[in-house]
Amino acid sequence: MSVSLGELAVRFGCELRGDPATSIERVATLANADARSLAFLANPRYRAQLTDTRAAAVVTTAADAPGCKAALLVCENPYATYARIAALLHPPPPLAPGVHPTAIVAASARIDPSAEVGAYATIGERVSIGARAFIGPHCHVDAGVNLATDVRLTAHVTLGPAVQIGARSVLQPGAVIGADGFGFAPEKRTWLKVPQVGSVRVGADVEVGANTTIDRGAIEDTVIEEGVKLDNLIMIGHNVHIGAHTAIAACTGISGSVSIGRRCMIGGMVGIAGHLSVADDVVITAKSSVSHSITSPGVYSSTLPTEEAHAWRRLVARFKRSGVLEERLRRLERAAGTKAAPQEPAEEDHD
Amino acid sequence: MSVSLGELAVRFGCELRGDPATSIERVATLANADARSLAFLANPRYRAQLTDTRAAAVVTTAADAPGCKAALLVCENPYATYARIAALLHPPPPLAPGVHPTAIVAASARIDPSAEVGAYATIGERVSIGARAFIGPHCHVDAGVNLATDVRLTAHVTLGPAVQIGARSVLQPGAVIGADGFGFAPEKRTWLKVPQVGSVRVGADVEVGANTTIDRGAIEDTVIEEGVKLDNLIMIGHNVHIGAHTAIAACTGISGSVSIGRRCMIGGMVGIAGHLSVADDVVITAKSSVSHSITSPGVYSSTLPTEEAHAWRRLVARFKRSGVLEERLRRLERAAGTKAAPQEPAEEDHD
Amino acid sequence: MSVSLGELAVRFGCELRGDPATSIERVATLANADARSLAFLANPRYRAQLTDTRAAAVVTTAADAPGCKAALLVCENPYATYARIAALLHPPPPLAPGVHPTAIVAASARIDPSAEVGAYATIGERVSIGARAFIGPHCHVDAGVNLATDVRLTAHVTLGPAVQIGARSVLQPGAVIGADGFGFAPEKRTWLKVPQVGSVRVGADVEVGANTTIDRGAIEDTVIEEGVKLDNLIMIGHNVHIGAHTAIAACTGISGSVSIGRRCMIGGMVGIAGHLSVADDVVITAKSSVSHSITSPGVYSSTLPTEEAHAWRRLVARFKRSGVLEERLRRLERAAGTKAAPQEPAEEDHD
Repeated sequence: MSVSLGELAVRFGCELRGDPATSIERVATLANADARSLAFLANPRYRAQLTDTRAAAVVTTAADAPGCKAALLVCENPYATYARIAALLHPPPPLAPGVHPTAIVAASARIDPSAEVGAYATIGERVSIGARAFIGPHCHVDAGVNLATDVRLTAHVTLGPAVQIGARSVLQPGAVIGADGFGFAPEKRTWLKVPQVGSVRVGADVEVGANTTIDRGAIEDTVIEEGVKLDNLIMIGHNVHIGAHTAIAACTGISGSVSIGRRCMIGGMVGIAGHLSVADDVVITAKSSVSHSITSPGVYSSTLPTEEAHAWRRLVARFKRSGVLEERLRRLERAAGTKAAPQEPAEEDHD
Repeated sequence: MSVSLGELAVRFGCELRGDPATSIERVATLANADARSLAFLANPRYRAQLTDTRAAAVVTTAADAPGCKAALLVCENPYATYARIAALLHPPPPLAPGVHPTAIVAASARIDPSAEVGAYATIGERVSIGARAFIGPHCHVDAGVNLATDVRLTAHVTLGPAVQIGARSVLQPGAVIGADGFGFAPEKRTWLKVPQVGSVRVGADVEVGANTTIDRGAIEDTVIEEGVKLDNLIMIGHNVHIGAHTAIAACTGISGSVSIGRRCMIGGMVGIAGHLSVADDVVITAKSSVSHSITSPGVYSSTLPTEEAHAWRRLVARFKRSGVLEERLRRLERAAGTKAAPQEPAEEDHD
Repeated sequence: MSVSLGELAVRFGCELRGDPATSIERVATLANADARSLAFLANPRYRAQLTDTRAAAVVTTAADAPGCKAALLVCENPYATYARIAALLHPPPPLAPGVHPTAIVAASARIDPSAEVGAYATIGERVSIGARAFIGPHCHVDAGVNLATDVRLTAHVTLGPAVQIGARSVLQPGAVIGADGFGFAPEKRTWLKVPQVGSVRVGADVEVGANTTIDRGAIEDTVIEEGVKLDNLIMIGHNVHIGAHTAIAACTGISGSVSIGRRCMIGGMVGIAGHLSVADDVVITAKSSVSHSITSPGVYSSTLPTEEAHAWRRLVARFKRSGVLEERLRRLERAAGTKAAPQEPAEEDHD
């Protein structure tokens, strides 16, 4: 596939600084681009590469343009423009509509003729698969599942009973949507399994990363609204509700019955305790522990960055003897006869 | 399916306050129940919903009963009673005994005729599958595996060589039991793989969550005792021993050769370092790091809850200059001529 | 299989203290060995077991040998020697060369006749599979993948387009190599998917644990160099580069575009933020958060070990009122008229 710079400029609304006839075949990094490839600059950390790149063209902002010898596609949001050009130059493999002869499809399932069902897929009773959907190899789609148009289950995806997936959503390999939630009633020092009878509703334009799990609701459905982006190895507990366009990085765990607002950005390996709510437009830094509800937009953190290990060990030791430090301070204050110290907040419960 | 309140009261030993002829068809939340559904109240946080619910009946304690207009099933442990009623009203799909024509079963495998082996399951040599076991689609059961009665492998489960699963245990999709442990001998600045020749023994009534992994033992078996409940995306290293009825929340990692007692409750995203032991009846809060053995029952924590990010950054900066603070305190003490400060604990090694 | 002690001593370069005719059939732990089994001692924590073991022979160092009644294979690196003996006594099941009749192999794929392709494997166009490679049941190998000699995909492994795996590398069940990276461009408060067009190159002698995910590069390839060992449930983001012989424990997450040096040892549940670099020979303790690049070899940590929960809560409360403590100290200093306090480091940004 090849496209001229002129066509790209028109199609994506960029100002072209360079020869419109130049032909672009692929995308590349600034560092390794060649005369057939297009690069982009969105992260200022790579700006120094702009002067040396051998790219045929670079997508960037007017502010970053000066000093670049390559042709330029100037626009306001170079990363988004790059994404659209990359999608044009590197389209996914075309669908092969139809059901692979090895797929097992229940009699009551309805599959749009434009959809592709791959090798060894298993499709349960009353499943509905929309136009141009792709069910990759080895996927298991349980009874009553509803897949909207253009859904893409890449491979090895498991969908539990009655799961609904909105249009254009993409599920990476190994994702498990609709497994039983972790519900057990304590009884006589053992655990009694609580049947999980809800399902999972996933909106349109959602991405679910590889080996991520979203549990079915205990009674009602777990809900992932439209435009939510979930990275790999994320755990979403039962009854969780995630608002539209929230993005969550890898390895994060959201406990049962948590409600998260819209447009939040949650870093990797964050843990959110059960039954909490998080407001719209909240940012949580990677590795933080959320153990209280967050009611206002803003940035929240409880991340401790690494130190050299001996220095760290001294810090931890001091932290653990902080009570002794306070006691020494109190003695000095008594000796000095200083006035009442500034009021201290009460010890708060942080469970 | 529908059951009368009277029958439910008799069957599950509740005191009925209401019309025994009322027919119940399903379970529901207090908030969304209707005249055909039964709800429960176990978490006081939802008590306000008791007055407004349109449920036909509510399972609750005598203490929580007053003020509820719905019929009541009064009992001591409403959550457990609810679980039993939900299991009655929402039974799992019935088994279809027999082996699916696409399943591949080794000649020496023995499968009870009442068991169901699903589409594309692969069953190795000398496997034994007990009565009423369910092997879901795409499961791989390696040679020598032994599955007791009523075991349920939902779908896409992988069992390595010689794994044993006790009666009634349930494995959610993507669970991997019996992969090689992480054993490598350092040699000349590279790593030499140490053959992992043990397997995994899982007791009765165990639950294993979606995409959770339990590694086979290096020499002897990794052991999960009866009644253990493991949430999703948990990692259990080789040679680990987990005592009966311990419950572990999602994303937790248990390093190799750890021994955990009975009836522990371990929160999500906890890490336990290798070769440690944890006593019976220990509770560890979510996101804690266990780097020493825990020898007494009790609650343990090292969780830091989130703050607004600027406030957090100031806290971390102060934490990192705690040495300067101690030095300032020492100077003041010298200047004041105060007596010896209270004895400080030695800096402890916390690796 | 059985081997004489004499043969083991010659083959693996050990000094034999005992009867060379003694026959060894299997490996065992010191505690549970019998007269047909061989044990080893490498971890001093188990040294007390040396006197009581009923093993036929023990592999250990000259320093640890005294006091052991069993025959001895004395060598410098007993764990490595044990690994080699265990591999001899417990070889993996032999390959059954050929393609299982249920495997689906694209016409343009080339499979070495000595390789084994298992039941229900799906092999895409232009795939190349080297000599003695093993493709286990239910594996999906996408178009353009290249597997070198002796590669082992155990079961349920997913390889995305154009992934390359070096010789002798082993992928445990559920591993997903080459899923889309987490790339989304923000635009008008929603996210636009950025096509991920790179792949993943994995070197020789790499181990990838169960349910671990390694994302394909956004433009160029994600690279795992030779000898890298990855435990279970690890997340490697797009564009990451991991140097040779680095070992990473379970549940760790490496964000996109991180570069890690050679021979690093990274503990479990560590998080490394995006675009950072880590030098060669760095050790990071379990559960640490890396939010700045690490430029020198050494040990790094930000792990807080658990305390009894009430004590922990008091520590956290003091930590959160550290500002009050500093203010009290300042007052005392003013009152005492002490000289300028030692210089404090500026509050550093730790994002």
